[in-house]
Amino acid sequence: MLKKAMLFTPGPTPIPDRVLRAMATPIPYHRAEDFKKLLGELRVQLKSLFGTKNEVAILSSSGTGGMEAALTSLLRKSDRVLVVDGGKFGARFAKMSHAFGLSTDVVKVEWGSAVTIAQIEKAMNGGHAALCIQMSETSTGTQHPIREIAQWLKKNHPKCLLIVDAITAVGAMHVPMDEWQIDALISGSQKALMLPPGLAFVAVSDHAKAAMKLSDLPKFYFDLQKELQQIEQNQTAFTPAISLILGLKESLAMLSEEGLENVYKRHLGIAEATRKALQHLGLKLASSSPSVACTAAYLPEKLDGKAFLKKIREQHGFLIAGGQDDWEGRVLRLSHLGYYSAFDLMNAVAAIGAELRRAGHSPNTSKATEEFLSLI
Amino acid sequence: MLKKAMLFTPGPTPIPDRVLRAMATPIPYHRAEDFKKLLGELRVQLKSLFGTKNEVAILSSSGTGGMEAALTSLLRKSDRVLVVDGGKFGARFAKMSHAFGLSTDVVKVEWGSAVTIAQIEKAMNGGHAALCIQMSETSTGTQHPIREIAQWLKKNHPKCLLIVDAITAVGAMHVPMDEWQIDALISGSQKALMLPPGLAFVAVSDHAKAAMKLSDLPKFYFDLQKELQQIEQNQTAFTPAISLILGLKESLAMLSEEGLENVYKRHLGIAEATRKALQHLGLKLASSSPSVACTAAYLPEKLDGKAFLKKIREQHGFLIAGGQDDWEGRVLRLSHLGYYSAFDLMNAVAAIGAELRRAGHSPNTSKATEEFLSLI
Repeated sequence: MLKKAMLFTPGPTPIPDRVLRAMATPIPYHRAEDFKKLLGELRVQLKSLFGTKNEVAILSSSGTGGMEAALTSLLRKSDRVLVVDGGKFGARFAKMSHAFGLSTDVVKVEWGSAVTIAQIEKAMNGGHAALCIQMSETSTGTQHPIREIAQWLKKNHPKCLLIVDAITAVGAMHVPMDEWQIDALISGSQKALMLPPGLAFVAVSDHAKAAMKLSDLPKFYFDLQKELQQIEQNQTAFTPAISLILGLKESLAMLSEEGLENVYKRHLGIAEATRKALQHLGLKLASSSPSVACTAAYLPEKLDGKAFLKKIREQHGFLIAGGQDDWEGRVLRLSHLGYYSAFDLMNAVAAIGAELRRAGHSPNTSKATEEFLSLI
Repeated sequence: MLKKAMLFTPGPTPIPDRVLRAMATPIPYHRAEDFKKLLGELRVQLKSLFGTKNEVAILSSSGTGGMEAALTSLLRKSDRVLVVDGGKFGARFAKMSHAFGLSTDVVKVEWGSAVTIAQIEKAMNGGHAALCIQMSETSTGTQHPIREIAQWLKKNHPKCLLIVDAITAVGAMHVPMDEWQIDALISGSQKALMLPPGLAFVAVSDHAKAAMKLSDLPKFYFDLQKELQQIEQNQTAFTPAISLILGLKESLAMLSEEGLENVYKRHLGIAEATRKALQHLGLKLASSSPSVACTAAYLPEKLDGKAFLKKIREQHGFLIAGGQDDWEGRVLRLSHLGYYSAFDLMNAVAAIGAELRRAGHSPNTSKATEEFLSLI
């Protein structure tokens, strides 16, 4: 069969031609009026996407830079923070917090499980200045119940800041930060925003703004307070990744044309169909609280997972992510975050089914692909 | 006249079509073998460009992030540093050093002058762990004598690290860091490398590597030691700005096809012609040690500088930078760093001449444009 390459990795995600073309136009000067006007327009759209009346800072870095900006700009050296670690990105938050010398407590969550409020409650003693958590922990395809955690936290520990890494959530699901009372919401460009990596986005609450004024952690490039002041002037503190911002204009326009509610419905519909489909193929879901961004499933025990995914890539052109660390070779992670239609995931599922059959398994591929038909 | 837009700003600089097209191709997965292979090839070319046997880290950030990576990765909390401040970027180094709590001494240099070894000698007492300086201070179009400073420093203060922001120097002039004994050499993508902003590059000496092991300044995203370990594996610590790296492949190929020695000769030839040409137009050079990256010149006293440059932009499509801070409205900064031919600068000079004449001045525009003919 003719092979068409396609990414099913949870970042980077496929980039629409329209966005690629926008980024391939000659570069404008970032201090000129036209560019300021563009930033002014994007500001309004980003605020709406983040569900906040406050500004959304645009940083030129990967999403990890956004996490660092939130952590170092909101906290004080003497602060104690609680980190939920249920995967690779939770672990990263803890490492980062240690790196900046913060007293760091960790709620260890089994891979593939969502954290419970009981687990957080047990770890909290009222002395934590911030709770750091992922909305969608992509390493395990797991979604943490942020809305419920926010409600509980604001009732029981109102002073504790809620810092949410929503890098694989914003733009894929509804995360209205003001309504939910999230204090810092972080995202990145190469996920639901359908752009190459290189931009991070961070918005903060009024509570967090007050905390920022007291923060004494060292920072310069990732000084959120400075960036938020700059974006109010339609500027960035340092030279921004201009070409990605040209692309952002197109990707935000595309989200707006589709309608955010439709975008969220599309993500949810595809995620649900993918979960059912993988089970028809005989695979067991690896998460008990699956994310709409990415579905992780265990591969058959006797299968060499790495070789299997390599075969799919070579035979069909589809790049599906494997497991990381403990899960290496044992799971597949099929991403449906960003620029994906139901057709795309139907194809991916069909390819997985075909190769499972060739490997001697008995997937029900036709039933699996059928799950997508109601979406089409 | 038909207006063709062109940037003459010292970053961003014009991007060749070939680079734009490379960045507009579908995005690859950064953990796949093909991308590792690409990073492996770029590593070799970057080492040659930096004139070093050591690795060059690729960071996804603006150039300022590269400065921060060098500063926070090489130094200890208890260190004292000396910063040469002869313009906006020197001042930035000092602010950054303060932000991370380092004891910071500053050699203040008059705008438009290069620092002298006597000035540095006077400020140094043997207690400085690092000397931070720009190779080309773009805010004033001034070049500092890095080679001579390095020689003097290594002879008189061999323990002091030399950290050089060469963001507007690498790729425009010869900066062989190993030969000159520079300890950290920093560059960025949107200058001589003909790319959009969003990548920073940092290489360090063996001396700096030893210092990195002892560094206790807090860092996570800009941890150079971690990045240098990763690049040895043809990887980056965090998701890199993939599309810019695809562009980097093309821009490094273009530099290699032209030949680095020819690239440096081109920059120098154009810079020298531009200096002479602006003087034929009746303008006085603003720097006594002009940079090959960018020529700054005083505008006639009675001229409203901002309105004049705006007129050039509107009439001719050429975006020429004005002065910053103290020099706002008083100087023009004409960039010739990156993807410029002698024709381009001849055009810019002709446009400046035409508008000076229309403003009632008596520029010798034909003599000015003639300066470029010997290069063509």
